[in-house]
Amino acid sequence: MFTLGLDYGTNSVRALIARCADGAEYGACVIDYPSGAQGILLDAKDGLLARQSPRDYLYGLEASVRGALAAASARPDFSPAKIVGIGVDTTGSSPLPVDALNVPLALDPRFSANLSAQCWLWKDHTGWSEAAKITELARAMRPQYVAKCGGVYSSEWFWSKIWRCLAVAPEVFEAAHSWVEIADWIPSVLAGVTDPRAIKRGVCAAGHKALYADDWGGLPDKAFLSALDPRLADLRDRLYEEAWDADTAAGALTPEWADRLGLTAGIPIAIGEFDVHYGAIGCGVREGTLVKVIGTSTCDCAVVSASEEVADIPGICGIVKGAILPGFFGIEAGQSAVGDIFKWWVEGVCRGDAALHAALTAEAEQQKPGQSGLLALDWNNGNRTILVDQRLTGLILGQDLYTSRADVYRALIEATAFGARAIIERIAEYGVRIDRVVCSGGIAEKNPLLMQIYADVTGRTMHVAGSSQSCALGSAIAAAVLAGQHPDFAAAQAAMTSLKPVHYQPIEANRTVYDQLYVLYRQLYDSFGGLDRSADLGRVMKDLIEIKYAQRAAA
Amino acid sequence: MFTLGLDYGTNSVRALIARCADGAEYGACVIDYPSGAQGILLDAKDGLLARQSPRDYLYGLEASVRGALAAASARPDFSPAKIVGIGVDTTGSSPLPVDALNVPLALDPRFSANLSAQCWLWKDHTGWSEAAKITELARAMRPQYVAKCGGVYSSEWFWSKIWRCLAVAPEVFEAAHSWVEIADWIPSVLAGVTDPRAIKRGVCAAGHKALYADDWGGLPDKAFLSALDPRLADLRDRLYEEAWDADTAAGALTPEWADRLGLTAGIPIAIGEFDVHYGAIGCGVREGTLVKVIGTSTCDCAVVSASEEVADIPGICGIVKGAILPGFFGIEAGQSAVGDIFKWWVEGVCRGDAALHAALTAEAEQQKPGQSGLLALDWNNGNRTILVDQRLTGLILGQDLYTSRADVYRALIEATAFGARAIIERIAEYGVRIDRVVCSGGIAEKNPLLMQIYADVTGRTMHVAGSSQSCALGSAIAAAVLAGQHPDFAAAQAAMTSLKPVHYQPIEANRTVYDQLYVLYRQLYDSFGGLDRSADLGRVMKDLIEIKYAQRAAA
Repeated sequence: MFTLGLDYGTNSVRALIARCADGAEYGACVIDYPSGAQGILLDAKDGLLARQSPRDYLYGLEASVRGALAAASARPDFSPAKIVGIGVDTTGSSPLPVDALNVPLALDPRFSANLSAQCWLWKDHTGWSEAAKITELARAMRPQYVAKCGGVYSSEWFWSKIWRCLAVAPEVFEAAHSWVEIADWIPSVLAGVTDPRAIKRGVCAAGHKALYADDWGGLPDKAFLSALDPRLADLRDRLYEEAWDADTAAGALTPEWADRLGLTAGIPIAIGEFDVHYGAIGCGVREGTLVKVIGTSTCDCAVVSASEEVADIPGICGIVKGAILPGFFGIEAGQSAVGDIFKWWVEGVCRGDAALHAALTAEAEQQKPGQSGLLALDWNNGNRTILVDQRLTGLILGQDLYTSRADVYRALIEATAFGARAIIERIAEYGVRIDRVVCSGGIAEKNPLLMQIYADVTGRTMHVAGSSQSCALGSAIAAAVLAGQHPDFAAAQAAMTSLKPVHYQPIEANRTVYDQLYVLYRQLYDSFGGLDRSADLGRVMKDLIEIKYAQRAAA
Repeated sequence: MFTLGLDYGTNSVRALIARCADGAEYGACVIDYPSGAQGILLDAKDGLLARQSPRDYLYGLEASVRGALAAASARPDFSPAKIVGIGVDTTGSSPLPVDALNVPLALDPRFSANLSAQCWLWKDHTGWSEAAKITELARAMRPQYVAKCGGVYSSEWFWSKIWRCLAVAPEVFEAAHSWVEIADWIPSVLAGVTDPRAIKRGVCAAGHKALYADDWGGLPDKAFLSALDPRLADLRDRLYEEAWDADTAAGALTPEWADRLGLTAGIPIAIGEFDVHYGAIGCGVREGTLVKVIGTSTCDCAVVSASEEVADIPGICGIVKGAILPGFFGIEAGQSAVGDIFKWWVEGVCRGDAALHAALTAEAEQQKPGQSGLLALDWNNGNRTILVDQRLTGLILGQDLYTSRADVYRALIEATAFGARAIIERIAEYGVRIDRVVCSGGIAEKNPLLMQIYADVTGRTMHVAGSSQSCALGSAIAAAVLAGQHPDFAAAQAAMTSLKPVHYQPIEANRTVYDQLYVLYRQLYDSFGGLDRSADLGRVMKDLIEIKYAQRAAA
């Protein structure tokens, strides 16, 4: 038997057909979203805006599944009828406004050209001032709300985006009957759910992004939401009361979608989770394992048994029961840009392509740690864990008149490695055991230089997940458990996941230098991040942005 | 009548034939130095090293003069016999080891391949540890020595370089009978001086770079030099007792050189000065005027009547009587890299050429101040005025994932403008009147964007010198005064210098924004420059360099 994993990424959607017995990957297909810039709708006037068309999601759904089926059908022991379940993972928090029939407003001709009516992609940071106000109010009125998400509510998250929509596009807010994370919306479409209140929402998105918790009876209470805006309190009634973990089905495949996709009607659809969460499952996450999904950004996932006490960890985005694996607290942290920073440098600044990535990597590999004299901060897209401040910006320091493109390239890799170390140290400091690091994603597989630097900087061996499609594989694993192919997630992971033979061990001489560099990195980090008040540099980046916006407004 | 100005720059030498009556430029010729990278001998292992071959100077001398004569000879009222004097300006501090006959060691086959036997170009910073030790000893033993050069002795200067040579190439030091600034050496060659002790040394180089002053009887005393190294005290006897201002002749043209150059034997040769000093004269420097020679680096010159008291100005490289104009204190400040920083960005990083400079300029011109959110420090080649610290490095801050090459280009221009403002404010704060700013150099003439930014950032109107060859013109002016064509420098400047019609006035709206940005710039400046001890960031760049060198040594 087989299951289908659907992985909605930032630029494309991937369908994967995996054998339940051993995780063997029988067929896969990746479909790029056709709209915007690499699938992202941008606004030239506002670099913080990133939206996506739900039309692209539906187009990509059918095309990718058809493609994966075609690929798997080359294998004699496969037939579409052997697919017994579907799992879905997506980016997030990526909420989408829908009408009372669960149809996206973006599909309504009145709103099809309105950027606010599209899906608000995870990396959209336009709601930064709303996020700051939510944080401020929660600290004063409901400190427990922000305690579990590191003390700061992010501009990337559900309420910041919805409230921002209310501020900038009230006509969209008014027309929206409800808002749905695409992690929940895709399964609801496949299951034919036509009432937003009937969507089985995942606790992953709810707990990590929407301030949902059993402790306070679900979503934030209406008094709190009213204090933000009474219309948000009204919206609460049209959202959801309960959210579910991956032991629950989101529904069963409708005959219409079964027909469109060439699958069997009625097969179960797993609860949707974020890509990195199912990715963590596909990488074999368990207690003591940290999974790093390294892509345009990086997400770090760990789990702690739900029977244990887990302390709040300052600056860690979320600790949510059931968010990754049922029966465990899911801990999520991350870096807002990793691959995106290298891409910015090579493609945006140096105007190169994959060949230049390779050339700069080859050149950077010749260098020893610290040799370039450069030090950078990995904040080109803000800092989402520990500082939880999307308005921080990048910094490169130490250049002379001979600093090369490869010098900067390596310094940017190192900066992301220092950022990764800061997260690992923070999690470990609060008692979460980490004795194995498993990395996943294209960068983990294709960039030995980066992996070695990560090992050297963190002082930990970096393993690489066996599957190159761990998110889609994790979705397929969730579907396999739900379809009864394995008794539980642990058994399914043992059967269906693996590690690659390659791994990266810290080189002692490099570690020593990186330990010195890390001290300097932390000085910049603490000063510019505002942790070290004595430095009085914490306002510099903010003041620059105020000026930048004032000037753009004046333009 | 005409005079010949010879201007030895960083990459080439220029010969200019100017009419004494009105400064009209009858002929000019630029010859690139043939050796090394654009005339500079580099060491791939040490980015601080920059040397030059004296062979290139002699080659360039003959070729440029012949070229200028050929050009001028097209004018019917010109003949080589009408050239009545020669002036020479050069980079500095650029000392050269010579033997007892004033022949460069670099021309001796034993040393021709030895980098330490070449001219130590102004931008060579290999002597940074020697500079620090000289500063330390002077502060303890002879505080007056460093008071006049801003409190810090630089790695760019005479004694740092010679002492460095003693440390790394004792065989060269031992073989050197004397050391001569090329500003003094070129005139000595033309005048046929074959004894280093007989060279007429200029007070410009002596006072600004070699700690020479009447107050303490010339060069540093032997007790001080002995405390550095007894061999430096021995060398003092083979240097000079007295240095001269531009009212003095360095000698008269020998028949041999007259023949080689096609000039008249016996015409006077002016004392050599640094390029920017004669450049300031060529730009019409007088009390109340600040001259900015904007090139690969920038030099700022002002004068104050020698009859007034001039306070020591902390961080200003030199206040030397007679260094620019006879009868005035010459005040020199500067920025270690300006054009070099743009060149680094466009050519080194973006791998572009003049067309890309133009394209990025056009793009940057569309931006309003502060719009990019970027802020940079202009320290890619250290900071030579105020902080007097060549080991400082560059910094770019504020980048996101959309920051463009043009954004950075503009931020780098702005950084140099902020650096320029810091210098102007420092000089003015200590009572030096500045009511006119005259800029010179290719950048001043060809980059209206930069000039407008400089006006907006400094709040002062930027004028542009009439001559595009103000250094060579200044040398020609010195020769004209010496040859009796004008009664004094003021009269010669009035007749021979001018301003271009174009000038740049501050735009109020831009000023307001730049005033805000300048506050932030100063926060970075003071923190990373080590002025603000509370920030504790002052060690960051130094620590990086220590690590960089340790790693290079280990490589």
